[in-house]
Amino acid sequence: MKAQLNLSVLAPETLNLILAPLGPDLEKVEKRLRSVGEECEGVLKDSANYVLCGGGKRLRASLVLFCFSIPKSKKKIEKNKWSKDNSVVRARELATAVELLHSATLVHDDIVDRAVMRRLKPSVNVQFGDDLSVLLGDFLYARAFSMIANLNDRDIVSWMTGMTEDMCAGEIDQLKNRYTVDLGLNDYISFIKRKTAALISSCARCGAKLSGLPAAQISALASFGMNIGIAFQIVDDLLDLVGTETLVGKTLRTDAGNGKMTLPMILLLGQLNAKERGPVIKSLNSLHPDWSYIEGLLKKYQIAQETNRYANDYLNRALEAIREIDSGSRQSLESFSRFVLKRDF
Amino acid sequence: MKAQLNLSVLAPETLNLILAPLGPDLEKVEKRLRSVGEECEGVLKDSANYVLCGGGKRLRASLVLFCFSIPKSKKKIEKNKWSKDNSVVRARELATAVELLHSATLVHDDIVDRAVMRRLKPSVNVQFGDDLSVLLGDFLYARAFSMIANLNDRDIVSWMTGMTEDMCAGEIDQLKNRYTVDLGLNDYISFIKRKTAALISSCARCGAKLSGLPAAQISALASFGMNIGIAFQIVDDLLDLVGTETLVGKTLRTDAGNGKMTLPMILLLGQLNAKERGPVIKSLNSLHPDWSYIEGLLKKYQIAQETNRYANDYLNRALEAIREIDSGSRQSLESFSRFVLKRDF
Repeated sequence: MKAQLNLSVLAPETLNLILAPLGPDLEKVEKRLRSVGEECEGVLKDSANYVLCGGGKRLRASLVLFCFSIPKSKKKIEKNKWSKDNSVVRARELATAVELLHSATLVHDDIVDRAVMRRLKPSVNVQFGDDLSVLLGDFLYARAFSMIANLNDRDIVSWMTGMTEDMCAGEIDQLKNRYTVDLGLNDYISFIKRKTAALISSCARCGAKLSGLPAAQISALASFGMNIGIAFQIVDDLLDLVGTETLVGKTLRTDAGNGKMTLPMILLLGQLNAKERGPVIKSLNSLHPDWSYIEGLLKKYQIAQETNRYANDYLNRALEAIREIDSGSRQSLESFSRFVLKRDF
Repeated sequence: MKAQLNLSVLAPETLNLILAPLGPDLEKVEKRLRSVGEECEGVLKDSANYVLCGGGKRLRASLVLFCFSIPKSKKKIEKNKWSKDNSVVRARELATAVELLHSATLVHDDIVDRAVMRRLKPSVNVQFGDDLSVLLGDFLYARAFSMIANLNDRDIVSWMTGMTEDMCAGEIDQLKNRYTVDLGLNDYISFIKRKTAALISSCARCGAKLSGLPAAQISALASFGMNIGIAFQIVDDLLDLVGTETLVGKTLRTDAGNGKMTLPMILLLGQLNAKERGPVIKSLNSLHPDWSYIEGLLKKYQIAQETNRYANDYLNRALEAIREIDSGSRQSLESFSRFVLKRDF
């Protein structure tokens, strides 16, 4: 049974507990995110503040900071030739930049998905219009790249820009494959790897790089991030189908409503008999799907449980990837990861 | 009297003549632009090809290549500490990247402006829909930044990302100031500096940086680019009002139709008597402006001529900025610049 968590604007208690070691740095990241809006003028300031000060779990920033804080073995420190210092200020800049990148994708996704709610507020496209949202997303992307460029780490710049390319290509692939009801599990995993997991993987990878960890550990953390990212998106897709809007804080049922095939729906379609399949397919192609019918079938075939098993499998792969990492840090990353799977929002 | 130029898909004869010294490199840039689409799959490949292989004057790529080809004085070569080689391959990569950046802005602008034609074809938003266009623009931005990052020049990465931020902020500023009929000349110049001229300035600046020119020449070329960029946008805004769609190759009258205040309109409003002003303001706030009435007034007050005088003033500033540059290169840049002002498309 999943515990009902208390949702504060920033993060629920459990998450606060897990993130406690990062507390002061995360606060500074929040402040830095606010400053991005404050440094602007007019409607850009208003809309940037609206997006950047509206809460959010800051999971990506946290992952950067967790990986940055992993202690280096004294023997094998890989020198960063490009950068003059490795202070935590740079890690906070990177953490801020990944939240900006993430926000940019949310702003553009909400246009594409015609979402009306995000973080318990009207989405930017509803509040400021689609036109402004297109340009605001562009600004947030550019601001993020600017901050990343200023880190002066050639690998990080190259990884982050390459990852963003893949992310956009993944989004387009998923958009194109809407209403493809025979979409397979492999296609789905390939979409969410690029759309979601690649950014999360880059957070871990770049946090580790900035900290000066050896190449093998950087790779291990990148793999950890990729698998946790997949698990995260699987849980997100499940919440889109079975979550409560006020708890999750954003418009739900946008996926199936937009014909987007996600894991729970793929698993459900694989179980249905011919009589059930017809009305579900019809629902998926309709502007007003018959949710109560679909919910009944999701329960009947225990789709939530099966979806969670997949998420759990990717969690295990993630934890396996970091078995060589310093045990204190590993424990933090494990708690963080388990939270990702248990969350109701 | 302006000569009617013969418009081919790529560029008219005059421009071809001016760009002749860059010929083989520009061809390779075209090929590289095509490869960006070809390396993709599905609808991303189709839409990227649609945007990137559809012609375009490649003025920005040309400016990169012109500035890269300026001979260095033997005495004062500034070493590029980051890069291993300064071959022309890198200049072509930069030239390709600025065209990708430019294309990304066009794709998103056409959504915001609800344009239906671009480069003599239906605009991407009409051909592939707004949703795909949002994500395609993002992909092109990311691809451009990725290529810029791979140049491994810290200054270029930082200048280009910072400029893109400004460019987006400028776009938003202009969007917000639509229907502001008392917009002043200074506001207008500030918009177009950020929206258009900053990218053109960066093309010159980064081309010069990549070539290893001394800092003073890099600055001079940046200033040249900024002023030519302003002149370019002034001419573009005039063409939007008085140009011929089949010649210009894109939807015209989108500016006034969208309430965007441009120089000719600002100059016109400054000239009108009270009786004329009313219907013009009404037209600007209408979905179907009375174009024949506005065109009559533009002629009566010789607005095209006055607008051209402004463009000419910025051309002179641009040429003044490069008076210390090698004379052969200066001549190429001057022909290029004069073309920008004379064009009918």
